[in-house]
Amino acid sequence: MDEDTATEILEATYRALCRYGYAELTLENIAEEADRSKGIIHYHYDNKENLFVELLDFLYERYTTQLPSVEGGTPRAQLSALLDVVLTDEETTPDQEIRTALLEVKAQAPYNDAIQTRLTNFDEVLFERIQDIIAAGVEIGEFDTTVEPAVAAEFLVTIITGAHTRCVAVECSSEQLHETITRYVEKHLIAEELSEAPH
Amino acid sequence: MDEDTATEILEATYRALCRYGYAELTLENIAEEADRSKGIIHYHYDNKENLFVELLDFLYERYTTQLPSVEGGTPRAQLSALLDVVLTDEETTPDQEIRTALLEVKAQAPYNDAIQTRLTNFDEVLFERIQDIIAAGVEIGEFDTTVEPAVAAEFLVTIITGAHTRCVAVECSSEQLHETITRYVEKHLIAEELSEAPH
Repeated sequence: MDEDTATEILEATYRALCRYGYAELTLENIAEEADRSKGIIHYHYDNKENLFVELLDFLYERYTTQLPSVEGGTPRAQLSALLDVVLTDEETTPDQEIRTALLEVKAQAPYNDAIQTRLTNFDEVLFERIQDIIAAGVEIGEFDTTVEPAVAAEFLVTIITGAHTRCVAVECSSEQLHETITRYVEKHLIAEELSEAPH
Repeated sequence: MDEDTATEILEATYRALCRYGYAELTLENIAEEADRSKGIIHYHYDNKENLFVELLDFLYERYTTQLPSVEGGTPRAQLSALLDVVLTDEETTPDQEIRTALLEVKAQAPYNDAIQTRLTNFDEVLFERIQDIIAAGVEIGEFDTTVEPAVAAEFLVTIITGAHTRCVAVECSSEQLHETITRYVEKHLIAEELSEAPH
């Protein structure tokens, strides 16, 4: 299978996941979404789990590219850009559907090592990126010197995860959560003389 | 059906939920867990969804009783006790199993209004309890005067939700998250002269 076909099938898997959810995802509805025969998909991937794990790897690549790196811009601007990426609903993607499907997938993690490994990758790359940005910010004095990068990063990864869960499970405003988290950063992480929020 | 029988069936439903997860939960395995005939359960509840919504109401009652109220103790001690209740794994209950099952249920919320309403109740009672405690703390000067109870409560509900999700989806330490959240409270919410953490 050439790379274009593989990418096309993975993109169809993504759309099928958004449309049907993980429990209802089948090779049939992926084939339909890709406008291919079920046979060809079965031939390349064997079963839904294999294809799904490939999809998680594909999404991981895209995710790490989207996350701002510590190159370019000040750490404060980088952290703000990162929060935009992970907390803002994009109009071009069906964010609510994919987050619902991913929540369903997270509940599968305790029963499926391959899935748990991939989810841990997403969690870790987010943690490391945030930790690096905060460490750089503390280093240049843009962030408060008492901030511990690892603790603050763990904190932010956890609250970002919570924002995603709450926006699926209960009706809540992702904009409001984005603002609440940004205020935390401005008030408690940014060095006092630079911070816009009252201390 | 008398109240004891109803309670017994709901407790069996809880055990079956922990054991099989939501997707695999059936009236059969609930009946087996309750040591009753499937017919009697079917007679009283019609289908799995009805019984499950009753279970959520039952768990909600228990949850509101467990959450510390604003009566008794200082707000700081109350908030600490509340974090213990919602973040500590109890040895007596299969916390990991129930959290996994509840995460699966959260992913169902967008498709099921009755479930979403119940999950919103859990979310709101936690928010209100935390908000009341923080407001009382600010009032008596135990919490920092710049703390806005509604914002801090939204923040804490979101990070508690994130801690629950992460402890299912990726391997992480609930004790460490408990400590991280407690440090946030001590460092950023408690009035400076009372706080144990460095500012």
